[in-house]
Amino acid sequence: MTQKVIVVGAGPVGCLAALYAAVRGFEVEVYELRTDLRDPNTPLNFGKSINLALSERGIHSLHKTGLSDLADAVLAETFPMHGRMIHVRKNGEYVRQAQSYDAHGRSLLAMDRTGLNKTLLDHLDAMPNVKLFFSHKLVGADFRKKTAWFEHRTKSAHEQGDEFELTFDLMIGADGAHSAVRYHLMKFVPMSFQQEYIDKLWCQFHVPPALDGDFRIPPNYLHIWPQDESMFIALPNLDKSFTATLFLTRQGFEELDASGKVVEYFDEKYPGVVPDLITEDDLRKQYTTNEHLPLISIKCTPYHYGDSGVILGDAAHAMVPFYGQGMNAGLEDVRVLFDFIDKHPNDRSQALSEYTKERTPDAQTINDLALGNYREMASDVKKPLYLLRKWVEEQLYVYVPSAGWATQYSRVTFSNMRYSEVQAAAQKQAKILNGVVGFGLVSLLSTAFWLARFGGAQQAKRGILRSICVVAQNLQKLTQG
Amino acid sequence: MTQKVIVVGAGPVGCLAALYAAVRGFEVEVYELRTDLRDPNTPLNFGKSINLALSERGIHSLHKTGLSDLADAVLAETFPMHGRMIHVRKNGEYVRQAQSYDAHGRSLLAMDRTGLNKTLLDHLDAMPNVKLFFSHKLVGADFRKKTAWFEHRTKSAHEQGDEFELTFDLMIGADGAHSAVRYHLMKFVPMSFQQEYIDKLWCQFHVPPALDGDFRIPPNYLHIWPQDESMFIALPNLDKSFTATLFLTRQGFEELDASGKVVEYFDEKYPGVVPDLITEDDLRKQYTTNEHLPLISIKCTPYHYGDSGVILGDAAHAMVPFYGQGMNAGLEDVRVLFDFIDKHPNDRSQALSEYTKERTPDAQTINDLALGNYREMASDVKKPLYLLRKWVEEQLYVYVPSAGWATQYSRVTFSNMRYSEVQAAAQKQAKILNGVVGFGLVSLLSTAFWLARFGGAQQAKRGILRSICVVAQNLQKLTQG
Repeated sequence: MTQKVIVVGAGPVGCLAALYAAVRGFEVEVYELRTDLRDPNTPLNFGKSINLALSERGIHSLHKTGLSDLADAVLAETFPMHGRMIHVRKNGEYVRQAQSYDAHGRSLLAMDRTGLNKTLLDHLDAMPNVKLFFSHKLVGADFRKKTAWFEHRTKSAHEQGDEFELTFDLMIGADGAHSAVRYHLMKFVPMSFQQEYIDKLWCQFHVPPALDGDFRIPPNYLHIWPQDESMFIALPNLDKSFTATLFLTRQGFEELDASGKVVEYFDEKYPGVVPDLITEDDLRKQYTTNEHLPLISIKCTPYHYGDSGVILGDAAHAMVPFYGQGMNAGLEDVRVLFDFIDKHPNDRSQALSEYTKERTPDAQTINDLALGNYREMASDVKKPLYLLRKWVEEQLYVYVPSAGWATQYSRVTFSNMRYSEVQAAAQKQAKILNGVVGFGLVSLLSTAFWLARFGGAQQAKRGILRSICVVAQNLQKLTQG
Repeated sequence: MTQKVIVVGAGPVGCLAALYAAVRGFEVEVYELRTDLRDPNTPLNFGKSINLALSERGIHSLHKTGLSDLADAVLAETFPMHGRMIHVRKNGEYVRQAQSYDAHGRSLLAMDRTGLNKTLLDHLDAMPNVKLFFSHKLVGADFRKKTAWFEHRTKSAHEQGDEFELTFDLMIGADGAHSAVRYHLMKFVPMSFQQEYIDKLWCQFHVPPALDGDFRIPPNYLHIWPQDESMFIALPNLDKSFTATLFLTRQGFEELDASGKVVEYFDEKYPGVVPDLITEDDLRKQYTTNEHLPLISIKCTPYHYGDSGVILGDAAHAMVPFYGQGMNAGLEDVRVLFDFIDKHPNDRSQALSEYTKERTPDAQTINDLALGNYREMASDVKKPLYLLRKWVEEQLYVYVPSAGWATQYSRVTFSNMRYSEVQAAAQKQAKILNGVVGFGLVSLLSTAFWLARFGGAQQAKRGILRSICVVAQNLQKLTQG
């Protein structure tokens, strides 16, 4: 008999999981608390989504669905970002500085979460073995009896809707950071669980296209105004607008609320924003109207119970947005889960157990990296040593390919290597690189000293070349060792 | 107008909170998911409660209710335990060894959780401004609108009961480790939250009175069979039975399940249990029938939202049972909460905020101490150095009262000092004591050497006395420094 898979949550991760299940011939039912976001009566923006950066893991997971047009349909609505553009004041002057993401020229893809979600929902509609149910709330689940209770909410949030019972073979929880599936799963499996709100809130802003219809700043970048304790960023949209986000401490927001001096604050901290991107009035209005939302970081394990329940995406590992990996990791969860289900077609208990075992360290790694990356985005990107190190890494990457060198960022963003392995490789490389940068600095300083002392462009060039050769030789020795 | 306090959970902590609120003239409603445990149709034992040890913090909190007979009614149904009795094999011989809890002779009070709960419920029944509602499930709460939704469960667990809405001024969540109040509170306040299942399960056993109607082993002790990785304990009951608990790793239970050799296992590890306390058949039956339950440890903060919601007891800080403080800390929560409510009669927001601020470090401290105390109960109690240290501490406590010396255990158990301050004081004392024990050991060893070398009881005594004097002098210097 065909097995029945219930997916709770019809966001990008839930939809992709339903597609993977449908392609494998399961009888699939998707239950979503909210209304259908393709319905014109649904508010366009739930106000809860940072603009997304799609990268390799997400794209790969879309491809692996096996539906030939899915990835193309999604990619058609993305906008490439080749690098970061840093906006700072240097000696009182407003300076913009571009930094590429990848020595091989690969890009992040800016994307609207709603657009991705619609494309996935449309593909689900086209599958004969998938049924979608909106406005349905999971109110109970018994993973031993494989029975769930849903409420169909036809009325207001707290009026009682019709409750009904159904059975399932597998329930997939992709219902976000405040997952109801996880809440019920916890009653059946002893779960270690940790959630932390970081001391940053975020507020979203819309930057409209310029009067001539074009982008207001160079479009192929993720724009950053790094201010250490705070940060303003902007990602391009297809319609030539930008979606911008202010990250600031709770106290910072409270002080700004109290003083009301939002424009003055932006003038001081984020050069080039007012009035070039947003008018004073619009900034004030958006700051007041748009919610100031918290950022949650969640770790838990295990992700499953027996052969009947599993959680994916934010439900399993909500992370802060600073590595741009939250949704990519969630889509990758789907691929990894179904790899194990394919590997053990007759033992789903084993499949889910291996999924938890493999995915726990990976999810916890990217969770930690995301927390750590705030510092890189809001502080390090301004620092000369960071830029030097980045430059050295890129040279090594391009000119010493035999060393298999790659930055942590490029492995996270442009590969499908397990997150935990990325971190291990990065830690090994960091040791080497610290040596190399240190050695390179000494060599360059010696060269500079020599140049100043004895002059002569010829000798200087020879000295620099010698330094680079020595660095390359050492690197090859070290990486092979 | 009289303010309305809703208490969710009618366990000991919830009942005490309701009494505190009632005494202060609030209009109180208590909602409990289960049926009334005084109802003869309610199963007597929910199978989820380790026998309790009531100590100073709990007793003090009962007294502070202001109801003159409450504490007496509770104390009348307790049984004193003056110390631990350790059961071990030494050189193949079964040995019992008594260790007093307190150099001043104070005791822990063994108590049945159900009995305490009944006494508290009876006192609530006697208050005109308290209404009790059983079989009511909290299904939603809006702490901004101060509105809650309950379901009256008249039918089986998952059939839909009647749902109704009510308003409140303050909701107190005392609904245990899997608190629904906390779950809803989390939607209104960014809460750091952490739960961990430790690698020990527990299984309860009933040890009946002897055939002559008396206790089977000395009654005034908490009996421990310490086996490092596992532990068996027994607490006396008023009816001359004991309630015993086996703590063992998940793997240990699984291996025992697989081998079926429960009696052999007890024979090897826990001398004197079979057949003196439990017959072979009874042990096998109870091991199979009684659940093997996990142990959860929960930390979170904050405990409140605005002026409308607060969580207490296990809902705020479920802890492992190894310090015997779980319920005592919960009852103390009630006292501390109402101290702050009394301090700020017209600003409950401030009261709840101060409650969170004071109670968070205290609860987290006792939570950690409870985790750490497994080692003391299951291993350290057998070790000579532990016993020596305990002896030295007790001597200092009794003979050098000017130093204000007290063990961490006695401060946790027999005082109302804040847990966080107990820990700070203990850490300071540990430094001193390590020095003292070290110095004492050296002195004693020198004396022993001297004695062996030159003989003479007179000199030996003089040497020992000299050591003790030096220790006492050093101690006074150190504690004053």
